[in-house]
Amino acid sequence: MAVADEHYHNDNKELQPLLVFGPPLIFQVFESRNSHKYLFLKAFSSQLPLPQFLTTQNVDPSSIRTILCNQLQPITANVIRLLPSLALIVTTTVGNDHIDLPECNQRGVQVVNVGGQTTEDVADMAVGLLIDVLYRISAADRYVRKWVPSKPWSLPRGSKLGGKGVGIVGFGRIGGEVAKRLEAFDCRIMYHSRKRKPFVSYPFYSNILELASNSDVLVLCCSLTEETKHMINREVMLALGKEGVIVNVGRGALIDENELVQCLVIGEIRGAGLDVFENEPKVPKELITLDNVVLSPHAAVLTSDYFTDTCEFVEESLSKSLLF
Amino acid sequence: MAVADEHYHNDNKELQPLLVFGPPLIFQVFESRNSHKYLFLKAFSSQLPLPQFLTTQNVDPSSIRTILCNQLQPITANVIRLLPSLALIVTTTVGNDHIDLPECNQRGVQVVNVGGQTTEDVADMAVGLLIDVLYRISAADRYVRKWVPSKPWSLPRGSKLGGKGVGIVGFGRIGGEVAKRLEAFDCRIMYHSRKRKPFVSYPFYSNILELASNSDVLVLCCSLTEETKHMINREVMLALGKEGVIVNVGRGALIDENELVQCLVIGEIRGAGLDVFENEPKVPKELITLDNVVLSPHAAVLTSDYFTDTCEFVEESLSKSLLF
Repeated sequence: MAVADEHYHNDNKELQPLLVFGPPLIFQVFESRNSHKYLFLKAFSSQLPLPQFLTTQNVDPSSIRTILCNQLQPITANVIRLLPSLALIVTTTVGNDHIDLPECNQRGVQVVNVGGQTTEDVADMAVGLLIDVLYRISAADRYVRKWVPSKPWSLPRGSKLGGKGVGIVGFGRIGGEVAKRLEAFDCRIMYHSRKRKPFVSYPFYSNILELASNSDVLVLCCSLTEETKHMINREVMLALGKEGVIVNVGRGALIDENELVQCLVIGEIRGAGLDVFENEPKVPKELITLDNVVLSPHAAVLTSDYFTDTCEFVEESLSKSLLF
Repeated sequence: MAVADEHYHNDNKELQPLLVFGPPLIFQVFESRNSHKYLFLKAFSSQLPLPQFLTTQNVDPSSIRTILCNQLQPITANVIRLLPSLALIVTTTVGNDHIDLPECNQRGVQVVNVGGQTTEDVADMAVGLLIDVLYRISAADRYVRKWVPSKPWSLPRGSKLGGKGVGIVGFGRIGGEVAKRLEAFDCRIMYHSRKRKPFVSYPFYSNILELASNSDVLVLCCSLTEETKHMINREVMLALGKEGVIVNVGRGALIDENELVQCLVIGEIRGAGLDVFENEPKVPKELITLDNVVLSPHAAVLTSDYFTDTCEFVEESLSKSLLF
């Protein structure tokens, strides 16, 4: 019998050990909803290596079948090898880059991510940021809040969305949802991704520079890799041009942020809607005073529905694993 | 020969007299683009009655074939009767309420408005305001601009758009365009208007209270009449409920603004996106400090494209009239 078994009885209910890395944003809510079900082993709150941490918790590594995590702490092969009964890793992220997938495959450990849960919210946010930048909604809102009565309203003009050429960079689930939405606004959709998508009829550009030259707007929806880091450099921004707008709901480092700041300050592009930044939570100080940017604190998915939906999704994924 | 003919020769080009009421927002741009074509008779800049004004301009009323106007100065039957050669009124508004249409019909005066030019922009703005209120984009933007480095990001959560029930109030051209857009976000569309629209398949509610009870969001796109004034009263807002959002791109007085302010302050509804107000340019001071409202200075159509497009549309309409 595992050493940790003594923890499993609490008011006559058996608590399942759940090893938590990260912690995920939902953790506080998740913990309060599930304290009757799980013994939470909070690896994220300890500086100790995992074996010592488990020892301090009186938990036998072989009693652990499930991990809950996000991208803040990687699940390495060493972690996986330490847990002989590990059957399931649930990550609250869109990607699985922080998990050693080959090791999981070899060991038959199932990996579940909540990506699909947030696809539509991120796409909604991308469209919202784009409309905001073009029609200057946040800038106008600031203007109205500072407006001095008795003066007429007067503020810089926006630019309409209809008819704009929108280049979607990274045509995965989020890119597809962005395209579906912007078609309804009569935008011309085109895209760039590693490979042409066989079932997508929008024009494909293998070259990001060519996409930028043909677009009024770039919407960045791809993941961050060695290849995509700083793919939106000065040359791409100049190709997009003075009326061009960039929306980034991917990762901050997809753009060379220093160059972006310069282009926005001197008007080499029209504006930007940014939900992500290169060194979060830092936002370049030059952007704070600009009216042609909309700044969002990586909030695309952080709706109250997200917390409820994601908790439910994680709960469901974990209870399935208990049926193994 | 008309008295005003002496004005018509300028660098050997004949200037057509154009009587301008209002003035329309585009007038400054329009004037600079068309000073070689028209003799601008700026009725809006004079306190004199029209006949005396025309006399001071040395213009014979019978030489005037065209009027350019907006809703700020009505084109009454008296104005029309004073101008025996009047053939065309071009208004830069969506509606024609400020023009005596029976008199125009009787006299065979053509009335052209630019309504259709701005339909899509207004619909875009409605969707932008809705996403902004739900995902708290402007509030988050203010938050980021005031954020003190070294603190983690932390701000109230938004609510997702997908799956929301959207009640469109007034299902004309703008309402239809809003519906088309929000369908792409997987919203459930329903509507209220004076009469059921025979070719619209969305659920119809003849009762605004019933529509509000069944909706998460109300988007106001109807015109202001005796019947629609204050149609969104306290009872309707309570029926919409604490999670409800109102977007107004119609006219301010469609809502009982005092009641709206109360509901927003004490949280009887979730939030509001307002492009219009009851006593523009005044905005109720209680709204200025609220984070659950987005305030826009009647700017839905005021894109730089609007100015160009509307000028072109007016130019085209006027040159057609010269072919009569």
